[in-house]
Amino acid sequence: MRYAVIMAGGVGSRFWPASTPEMPKQFLSFFSSQSLLQQTVERIKPIIPTDRIFIVTNANYAAIIKEQLPSLPIENILCEPQAKNTAPCVLLATKKIALIDPDASVAVLPADHYISQPDVYLDVLNAAFEHAEQKGMLTTIGIQPHRVEMGYGYIKYQKNNLASTGNELTTSVYKVDAFTEKPNYDKAKQFIAEGNYLWNSGMFIWSNKVIQKAFEDYAPAMFSVAASTLNKSEDFVTGATGITQFFAQVESISIDYAIMEKAESVSVLPGVFGWNDVGSWQAVYELELEKDAAANATNVPLDAIDAKGNLVRLHNRGKKVALLGVEGLAIIETEDTLMIAKLERSQDVKQFGHS
Amino acid sequence: MRYAVIMAGGVGSRFWPASTPEMPKQFLSFFSSQSLLQQTVERIKPIIPTDRIFIVTNANYAAIIKEQLPSLPIENILCEPQAKNTAPCVLLATKKIALIDPDASVAVLPADHYISQPDVYLDVLNAAFEHAEQKGMLTTIGIQPHRVEMGYGYIKYQKNNLASTGNELTTSVYKVDAFTEKPNYDKAKQFIAEGNYLWNSGMFIWSNKVIQKAFEDYAPAMFSVAASTLNKSEDFVTGATGITQFFAQVESISIDYAIMEKAESVSVLPGVFGWNDVGSWQAVYELELEKDAAANATNVPLDAIDAKGNLVRLHNRGKKVALLGVEGLAIIETEDTLMIAKLERSQDVKQFGHS
Repeated sequence: MRYAVIMAGGVGSRFWPASTPEMPKQFLSFFSSQSLLQQTVERIKPIIPTDRIFIVTNANYAAIIKEQLPSLPIENILCEPQAKNTAPCVLLATKKIALIDPDASVAVLPADHYISQPDVYLDVLNAAFEHAEQKGMLTTIGIQPHRVEMGYGYIKYQKNNLASTGNELTTSVYKVDAFTEKPNYDKAKQFIAEGNYLWNSGMFIWSNKVIQKAFEDYAPAMFSVAASTLNKSEDFVTGATGITQFFAQVESISIDYAIMEKAESVSVLPGVFGWNDVGSWQAVYELELEKDAAANATNVPLDAIDAKGNLVRLHNRGKKVALLGVEGLAIIETEDTLMIAKLERSQDVKQFGHS
Repeated sequence: MRYAVIMAGGVGSRFWPASTPEMPKQFLSFFSSQSLLQQTVERIKPIIPTDRIFIVTNANYAAIIKEQLPSLPIENILCEPQAKNTAPCVLLATKKIALIDPDASVAVLPADHYISQPDVYLDVLNAAFEHAEQKGMLTTIGIQPHRVEMGYGYIKYQKNNLASTGNELTTSVYKVDAFTEKPNYDKAKQFIAEGNYLWNSGMFIWSNKVIQKAFEDYAPAMFSVAASTLNKSEDFVTGATGITQFFAQVESISIDYAIMEKAESVSVLPGVFGWNDVGSWQAVYELELEKDAAANATNVPLDAIDAKGNLVRLHNRGKKVALLGVEGLAIIETEDTLMIAKLERSQDVKQFGHS
């Protein structure tokens, strides 16, 4: 059976003041009445029912998740007692699912991305499942780059299409050559020019047995801690000795570093389905479809004179906003804070969260 | 005895959204806990006690004035039943004071200007009173221009100093040659270059008998309406037949047009006392002395990154403001409206008030 593990433990401050450590990005609604987490669940529901969806998160967020996903079984919320990056989270969920279904295949997905073409996305995800199940390979979905971007890691792949060599897939599948770090501008430009590079989206699909074997091979210490702490379903309950011991003893490391970069045989499927990691207020502005004639996007009544390209997001929907002669601003108001930032500087708003 | 008449009927929208028709500029506090009206009264109190100060206003503002000036006798608030510009207001107050003190001298003053050197101002005002009382001339105070300004009327004066011809005044006094309209840029530049031009501040000082004679000579129709409607103190009570008839019958005209431009013998005293008509949010920004190292002026806690020269005025003093990469903005929030405007465009905010 197919399962999904949604990673929802992020504490990002890129959407300050709307996002806070108490209410990070994945629980916020940007272009929809649904939060990014809710959208992530809705998106995969046609192929994976909620009882086979697991959420790995911080214990502080369990209440928000229960509220946002009332149909999710409570035991499907796995709470990390401390943040140890993504590899321990993945192994935790892997062990949990292994107890339920030894023959599971699993998609590990971020909770806070936006996808404008969910149907196309599901086709790619289904193809990735089929490939992972048939070939027993660690599989990832890479995003076809459409600009020179220094903010993401890249996946280099070998140009011969695995899908053309005898299987039934309609989607191309390539063998991964290397996972690379975030490049500088020249390197990013070169990657795009070479053509066989994709953005690393953090979406992984594999047979649950194959990823366990990969942990055993490439992260043996962590695997062995898991073997001695995570054996029965009670070990996964929030605050239990098993999960607590596991997180106390393992190193903090990403799944990319711990497994993907070391594994010999990884496959990648290129995806073109309107993916956006919604990394800043500027991304929110760009993704917003409802804009007025002067390209202002607002969630409250707006009176604009010579004002264009502004994003207005107010907590109090009853308030009116008037703009005169201003351009390219993010105007964000929460209950207790008003932020006004140049949209082009919006990646710097996290500095406010630390002050 | 000396009296003051403060013109406080303005309904200006230059401080939208803080100013509204219900609460115009003269009742707002900008650089002080006191409103501009309260400051105007405080400024002249050393020479004119409140029982000799009259306020001409719109009936809608009577309650605000009572609240802001609790020591003012209620009968000193004169309420226009309709707006007919300044000449009828002046004549109304003139007639009211004539009933109380036939030998009064009167200063007519705007309610909404700021003066940074009130002591110097009082010296000039005293000199103007002395001159008006001794010479029986209509007298005005002109502001020494310090920039090419197209937004004010100018007063041209004859260069021989009347004060040097035998009287006791320490302040220069000149004979007015002409009152001029707001000039274009070239004309304003020429006025400054010529040297014998002052800004028309709308402050007038005269013997109450002399101004009555001037109305009789230059505005005989209005004078005659007043003679038949405003004869006893009951005629001045809000809603009384006298005052209602008077305003219904007189034409709408400014004191400048009706009297000052026609009068043969008008004197002017140049004033240099830190006068500012506080005509826009930009003026408020410039007059504000308390600014941070990046020249931001705020009335709430401000966290600024690469943000300078901004004016922040929030109704809710408990709210925090964060600014990133923005410059020269007026950020004004009332209970129900947030306005963000380029300070240099702030003379245009009145457009919002009309929409």
